Amino acid sequence: MTIRTLVWSENVHERTNAEVARLYPQGMHATIAAALNADPGIAAGTATLQDPEHGLTEARLAATDVLVWWGHAAHGEVADAVVERVVRAVWSGMGLIALHSAHFSKVFLRLMGTPCNLSWREAGERERVWVTAPHHPIAAGLPAFFELEHEEMYGEPFGVPEPLETVFVSWFQGGEVFRSGLTYRRGAGNIFYFRPGHETYPTYHDATVQQVLRNAVRWAANPAPRLADPQAAPNVPVEAAPERIEARGASLHAPGREGFR
Amino acid sequence: MTIRTLVWSENVHERTNAEVARLYPQGMHATIAAALNADPGIAAGTATLQDPEHGLTEARLAATDVLVWWGHAAHGEVADAVVERVVRAVWSGMGLIALHSAHFSKVFLRLMGTPCNLSWREAGERERVWVTAPHHPIAAGLPAFFELEHEEMYGEPFGVPEPLETVFVSWFQGGEVFRSGLTYRRGAGNIFYFRPGHETYPTYHDATVQQVLRNAVRWAANPAPRLADPQAAPNVPVEAAPERIEARGASLHAPGREGFR
Amino acid sequence: MTIRTLVWSENVHERTNAEVARLYPQGMHATIAAALNADPGIAAGTATLQDPEHGLTEARLAATDVLVWWGHAAHGEVADAVVERVVRAVWSGMGLIALHSAHFSKVFLRLMGTPCNLSWREAGERERVWVTAPHHPIAAGLPAFFELEHEEMYGEPFGVPEPLETVFVSWFQGGEVFRSGLTYRRGAGNIFYFRPGHETYPTYHDATVQQVLRNAVRWAANPAPRLADPQAAPNVPVEAAPERIEARGASLHAPGREGFR
Amino acid sequence: MTIRTLVWSENVHERTNAEVARLYPQGMHATIAAALNADPGIAAGTATLQDPEHGLTEARLAATDVLVWWGHAAHGEVADAVVERVVRAVWSGMGLIALHSAHFSKVFLRLMGTPCNLSWREAGERERVWVTAPHHPIAAGLPAFFELEHEEMYGEPFGVPEPLETVFVSWFQGGEVFRSGLTYRRGAGNIFYFRPGHETYPTYHDATVQQVLRNAVRWAANPAPRLADPQAAPNVPVEAAPERIEARGASLHAPGREGFR
Repeated sequence: MTIRTLVWSENVHERTNAEVARLYPQGMHATIAAALNADPGIAAGTATLQDPEHGLTEARLAATDVLVWWGHAAHGEVADAVVERVVRAVWSGMGLIALHSAHFSKVFLRLMGTPCNLSWREAGERERVWVTAPHHPIAAGLPAFFELEHEEMYGEPFGVPEPLETVFVSWFQGGEVFRSGLTYRRGAGNIFYFRPGHETYPTYHDATVQQVLRNAVRWAANPAPRLADPQAAPNVPVEAAPERIEARGASLHAPGREGFR
Repeated sequence: MTIRTLVWSENVHERTNAEVARLYPQGMHATIAAALNADPGIAAGTATLQDPEHGLTEARLAATDVLVWWGHAAHGEVADAVVERVVRAVWSGMGLIALHSAHFSKVFLRLMGTPCNLSWREAGERERVWVTAPHHPIAAGLPAFFELEHEEMYGEPFGVPEPLETVFVSWFQGGEVFRSGLTYRRGAGNIFYFRPGHETYPTYHDATVQQVLRNAVRWAANPAPRLADPQAAPNVPVEAAPERIEARGASLHAPGREGFR
Repeated sequence: MTIRTLVWSENVHERTNAEVARLYPQGMHATIAAALNADPGIAAGTATLQDPEHGLTEARLAATDVLVWWGHAAHGEVADAVVERVVRAVWSGMGLIALHSAHFSKVFLRLMGTPCNLSWREAGERERVWVTAPHHPIAAGLPAFFELEHEEMYGEPFGVPEPLETVFVSWFQGGEVFRSGLTYRRGAGNIFYFRPGHETYPTYHDATVQQVLRNAVRWAANPAPRLADPQAAPNVPVEAAPERIEARGASLHAPGREGFR
Repeated sequence: MTIRTLVWSENVHERTNAEVARLYPQGMHATIAAALNADPGIAAGTATLQDPEHGLTEARLAATDVLVWWGHAAHGEVADAVVERVVRAVWSGMGLIALHSAHFSKVFLRLMGTPCNLSWREAGERERVWVTAPHHPIAAGLPAFFELEHEEMYGEPFGVPEPLETVFVSWFQGGEVFRSGLTYRRGAGNIFYFRPGHETYPTYHDATVQQVLRNAVRWAANPAPRLADPQAAPNVPVEAAPERIEARGASLHAPGREGFR
């Protein structure tokens, strides 16, 4: 079963910065989608901030198994209604891969519930990504480490919740470290944060990075049917209780009423 | 060092429902605060939805080590600005105890990043709370289980992230189970969710429940100084890198500029 | 790719207790293996305590993707050398499903590092297993809960490490609760503990239990090649360091020597 | 209440290697104990491999709140009976701080249930330890990072279970990274693994390392009474069930009999 994947990018610096345009002439989303489509089990399309509703309509999300998100300069321009829509899609079972500066995207912040902050330096230094969980599907087929000769530095502490598993930890030439691959679940949705990918470097052209992305999409895809209402809080009437009981004592809710929200 | 604790309640049903008023004539917050103040190491005050800014001004939060939150019918009336203020206080190091129907409070939803849903039944049935982590400070001095003869049922699945630790699991007479005590960290703030406490039953008058609340406040208090900016994302200039490096390659950021948010 | 599965059982009470023999005339392992073989992607065989080397030779383990373990009365008769062999196979990537009273098996104790204790009662009471992680692959296709009319009770606290995820929690008629489905990783091996399965009841004939077992085998199978030495601790000589460094200061180890164990 | 702490060391290289003897003339245990005793809330003594029963009698362990363990060359000489005794003490509530090469000690291996392997290099290179969980009590009062100019390198992957929390991650001059501070619970015992401390370098004379050790002892101390039998698995007779039930169906156990182990 093909994994329907949507690569979303804000697509800003590709149009305003000469170096980024040179590296990613069709946009970072196009490069990433092409890398994903090298896996016959993945069918990746793209959407950008500039599309109507940022290309993230209810219909599009409903037909997306895994969403890949790259944003940096324009987090604030993403409409709150779209953010809520994406969050609910994740809760309903859509996977999410948050890339690099997406740590400060509205979508990731909403799903983590934490500050998501870090330290940073843009110096084109060397990053070496170490696999800390070699058994993990996202690390399948990878070497013990891989290097990116030029990357932005992200340093600890990274203000995220303790992950389910730490898959990668990065070493930086300038002396910092960073937990670069982290897994989470939010509702029925699998989430993977992956650090590399500063737009002024050719990171998404790197073959190992592309393998990580394909692995991550496969890991994040949830084959179960999407939940119709991920926040349903059903009342179980006394007569439907699994064990026979009788109602006792005072009550706030008239029979059949919905709960408070 | 005394733990400065603030017990917040929406204080609605105490004023509109005769049974709730009978059980908690001064409000649930008053009963809970009195229970906490039985511990000489805790100094608990109260605030309610009806206070100006819901009693949750910046100054008040800055002077609060642990916030206890009870809400149910009026989640929607809590001002979003106050919610953000509370979330940032937690990130900065304030502890949070979320009680019962606070599972659907804006504050808890924001900090969890998940649906926080569950099934429920208001039938005054018996709840038996089992200690699953007897080593945990929140279980200190507790028996293997304790019973609440009349409680609202909350049933699994509970739509929260995997906790750091599961401290309690509840058995319900009608046949359901629920993870009733869960710990989290969000930024520098410790969070404990505790299930019992439906307003039409005398739960917060129960001696064991009161012990849990005192234990939880002690566990949640973070003695470290409050963070000034919990979401700071400092740039580390090349010349301040721990290891000597030289800037290479293209760059988006002029020296000294702040990062994007 | 077919998942090569081995169902191991001590096969004691099937031969000494009339009721167990009636329920499982070919042994519990045969019933479980048949249930697994209903999945065309699984090829399940069996082995028992009475086989030479308990049927768990190096060759057999090397050809096993997932091992299912049921033991109860004869934990002490399992040879320590075989236990170590199984533990190393798990570390190397073999999945393990520990069933019911396997909580006190040598293999499970070794892999958990904890007491693995619990309370228990053999009264043929009703157990209701609730799904707490409906998104999890092990819960795929399951209803919200399923009932076993007659089961042994296991009660909290269950002396295990915090799991990666809690998939099931059980309700018992007599008033207890238990975390009945827990996931772990140990080295490259995926481990699932599943509570139901007392030998005097027809639990493994239950269709939903059988579905859980099939799901668990699929989840536990690790498609990566088995590790040759799961405890390898390689020395990285100075000249092979990823970054160029020079050896400095005192040293314990002559060049090329192995580390201490 | 004073935390009774016991610093255990194998005390081998201090007596056989001139450089180690120069750095730690009274043994590493003496230096570590002195550092702990600088905290008025800690009373630290010492024991070594050469003491009768390695200085770890039942009585000594019963009077120990936190055990600090350093071993390297002589793991194999630690008697298995003593290892089991220590493991049971941890399960009963004794804290354990495992230092550096204790990753391969019998005690730590038993408690983790994993390979505990890593890569290594003895080149006196620089290690920079980053705080990844600044809110954690073990990081109290620490700077964002601290440096050890000469240390042995330990590299990922580190073959341990996912921790409760990752407190430190190390950067190495030669290009590797390592999760250097990890927390676990095993039974009622709190466990902290701390990486630094190769015997040919003055690591335990470092003021920040000493602060980490004091913080860790305070964190690991469990004020609850020690469990008499950490592996007790009590039978709950039908007549003692919290809810009234009647025994039904077949049974293996005669009334009052103990369970199988």
